[in-house]
Amino acid sequence: MGDTVKFTLGERDIPTHWVNLMADLPLGGPPPLHPGTLEPAGPDDLAPIFPMALILQEVSTEPLIEIPEPVRDAYKLWRPTPLYRARRLEQALDTPAHIYYKYEGTSPAGSHKPNTAVPQAYENAAAGIRKLTTETGAGQWGSALAFACMLFGLECEVWMVGSSYDQKPYRRSMIQTWGATVHRSPSDRTEAGRAQAQHTTGSLGIAISEAVETAAQAPEANYSLGSVLNHVLLHQTVIGQEALAQMEMAGEYPDTVIACVGGGSNFGGLTFPFLRRNIRDGATTRFIAAEPAACPTLTKGVYAYDFGDTAGLTPLMPMYTLGHDFVPPPVHAGGLRYHGDSPLVCALVKEGLVEARAYKQNDTFDAAIRFARSEGVIPAPEPAHAIRAVIQEAEAAREAGERRVILFGLCGHGHFDLSAYDAYLAGKLEDPEFSEADRDAALAALPQAPALA
Amino acid sequence: MGDTVKFTLGERDIPTHWVNLMADLPLGGPPPLHPGTLEPAGPDDLAPIFPMALILQEVSTEPLIEIPEPVRDAYKLWRPTPLYRARRLEQALDTPAHIYYKYEGTSPAGSHKPNTAVPQAYENAAAGIRKLTTETGAGQWGSALAFACMLFGLECEVWMVGSSYDQKPYRRSMIQTWGATVHRSPSDRTEAGRAQAQHTTGSLGIAISEAVETAAQAPEANYSLGSVLNHVLLHQTVIGQEALAQMEMAGEYPDTVIACVGGGSNFGGLTFPFLRRNIRDGATTRFIAAEPAACPTLTKGVYAYDFGDTAGLTPLMPMYTLGHDFVPPPVHAGGLRYHGDSPLVCALVKEGLVEARAYKQNDTFDAAIRFARSEGVIPAPEPAHAIRAVIQEAEAAREAGERRVILFGLCGHGHFDLSAYDAYLAGKLEDPEFSEADRDAALAALPQAPALA
Repeated sequence: MGDTVKFTLGERDIPTHWVNLMADLPLGGPPPLHPGTLEPAGPDDLAPIFPMALILQEVSTEPLIEIPEPVRDAYKLWRPTPLYRARRLEQALDTPAHIYYKYEGTSPAGSHKPNTAVPQAYENAAAGIRKLTTETGAGQWGSALAFACMLFGLECEVWMVGSSYDQKPYRRSMIQTWGATVHRSPSDRTEAGRAQAQHTTGSLGIAISEAVETAAQAPEANYSLGSVLNHVLLHQTVIGQEALAQMEMAGEYPDTVIACVGGGSNFGGLTFPFLRRNIRDGATTRFIAAEPAACPTLTKGVYAYDFGDTAGLTPLMPMYTLGHDFVPPPVHAGGLRYHGDSPLVCALVKEGLVEARAYKQNDTFDAAIRFARSEGVIPAPEPAHAIRAVIQEAEAAREAGERRVILFGLCGHGHFDLSAYDAYLAGKLEDPEFSEADRDAALAALPQAPALA
Repeated sequence: MGDTVKFTLGERDIPTHWVNLMADLPLGGPPPLHPGTLEPAGPDDLAPIFPMALILQEVSTEPLIEIPEPVRDAYKLWRPTPLYRARRLEQALDTPAHIYYKYEGTSPAGSHKPNTAVPQAYENAAAGIRKLTTETGAGQWGSALAFACMLFGLECEVWMVGSSYDQKPYRRSMIQTWGATVHRSPSDRTEAGRAQAQHTTGSLGIAISEAVETAAQAPEANYSLGSVLNHVLLHQTVIGQEALAQMEMAGEYPDTVIACVGGGSNFGGLTFPFLRRNIRDGATTRFIAAEPAACPTLTKGVYAYDFGDTAGLTPLMPMYTLGHDFVPPPVHAGGLRYHGDSPLVCALVKEGLVEARAYKQNDTFDAAIRFARSEGVIPAPEPAHAIRAVIQEAEAAREAGERRVILFGLCGHGHFDLSAYDAYLAGKLEDPEFSEADRDAALAALPQAPALA
């Protein structure tokens, strides 16, 4: 039999703790601010929409946080996920690089999102909450939360960004199959939605406002966010911890780790356990964050305090932002259409520990097709951005004649994105450009807040 | 941590041989007949459309057939697949039964079909063939063959049953993403298609005729079948062999094994290694084949010689049949819409070694939703028939107060079938009845051939 391509862990190898990078970093950075007072926002400010257990995770500086047993039990439905050596892609690229990918598409929802949906649903159910509200872009987060709420007996109500609601009807069906309710955003069910009715294709910022508003008004309901916040990235670190163990099985350690970034949870989940090795143990791995050129938060945004949502209901967060009222063009990587990014990931970029790159939509689908035609798995458009960066790095390794070890996150499959593949194969995929004029207009609307260094 | 739910094998545990049940059974049964001469069909009769390596597998009576190394290498892209204990479903059903399922949905194509697509593509490529043609129902087989042809550098041309082509556009996109071509059947590209143009929703029988006709006319092309034939069922026995090893990890042995049947390859793949234990080692496992009430081949067909396709191009096969010109109603379990069944599975039913049951479409989707809302995975409509039988058996175990061990095959996910879930949830799913009049009409068209006992 030939060489190993799949590195498999058993359910006993599911991590027992999450890795909290806040413990390693003074650059957890400037605190979030209350949107009214501009004072640092404390746990009490978050209590109307989050359970205390998650708020404590949000602000914790403990290096490791134990995973509750009911959460590990639910993780067994799909974890550990496989790590692959992409030998067929290496051959197709004729590169001396060794390429590995951690594949999260085997979860019931088809992405990494259930890694945090499950602990969020668990902690809310444990706190006596009956219903969760949320937003979703491409539908990956909404379906993951519907799945998790089903496991713990919670109701679930989802606002889905209009452009994705129209492009991806089957994600919506999936949400309903698990028993949740889904609305097209902007909707007429909330003040925030009615105020933004002119943005018919919607945005994550608007959908967040709708879900937050609904949760804030109902005592039995809480809100749940699929990315950006510290506790969400924390939950995702099961990915990187498993990948560390699997790279050890493979007998290699990555020179470069690559993941796509929308709100940062997939990126943080894969990279944080490796970043801790850089910070604590002197490893010298490079980290690359791949984002869409149509919504280039990390590469073209400004580092400033901004709202997480369009209506300005959330705390002000220190992050790279394109302005909270920027409405990204409807590219198919719906999960990457967010005006801001995780404050933690932004701080890492700001400090130079992470490099960010932006890729255009057609180049991204070209990379996705090359991957599908070598490795088999058809990737979601979001991780296709990471694949684009991987190909760039693998070609650089070939030119340098160096055997580099590259690890990337394949955070989901593209089974609900095939109309985008159709458009690409037919040569009909648009490639919207981010305009500096749009940026200037959006940034002019930044809230009054202390400047960031 | 709680009880084990997932039993995981590593890539070294991929079986080294396929299990050939022909070696165990005189009831491999009556031989196929040449459609013209009505003499037993020999290897030479199959040579125009199949490579000799597969023909030899088709007629072999060796108990074990070695899996070529390039095939095992390709299997590593998704095998071994997980086996789960369905503890959440057991709880939901309040049953003392232990329910296990072998999940084949983690393959790149999302079903068990690549298990045979890969060796078929490999053997054809090794024989110098440049292109494969085939039919597909729901698209599971067509996408699996497109994936396999991509791995071995073959062209691939697929005729897709009209009703599924319309209902499941994303399966078609998947086929194209892997570089294959797909036509709606009946098409105007073949004589067989033009002759059946009035059956606008199509059938597997018609699509087979179109693909066989095209392959027979091109020396560089061969035909590939996704079910029914002995060598196809042989390849699928990797499923049952892994399941045997995983049940041993679980410390249990199944009293009942259940799988859905369309052409029989999923059923044979899971059950044959267990059936061999019954035949050789005195195990007493029961085997249940679940099929749709709208196309009840095993439960309402006659056991007779019939063509595998509508146009009468294939050898006559001894099987339960609803008549080769029966066009099943367009139920969503496209993979189960076939007028006949594997001769090997039919012989097992005929001999009483396998029990067949038919289920209606709405009952099947009710079972699918119950499964999705307990175990998480959204099943394809085909294995939902098996789930319906599992629920029946689990309820019988509860009534009997017996701890029975049930194993079933979850042969694919339902990511491309969500419009059917939409229809079910909206109460709009039709439930076509099989009519005795239809049956009488279809059986009247049976070919002249020796009667079967």
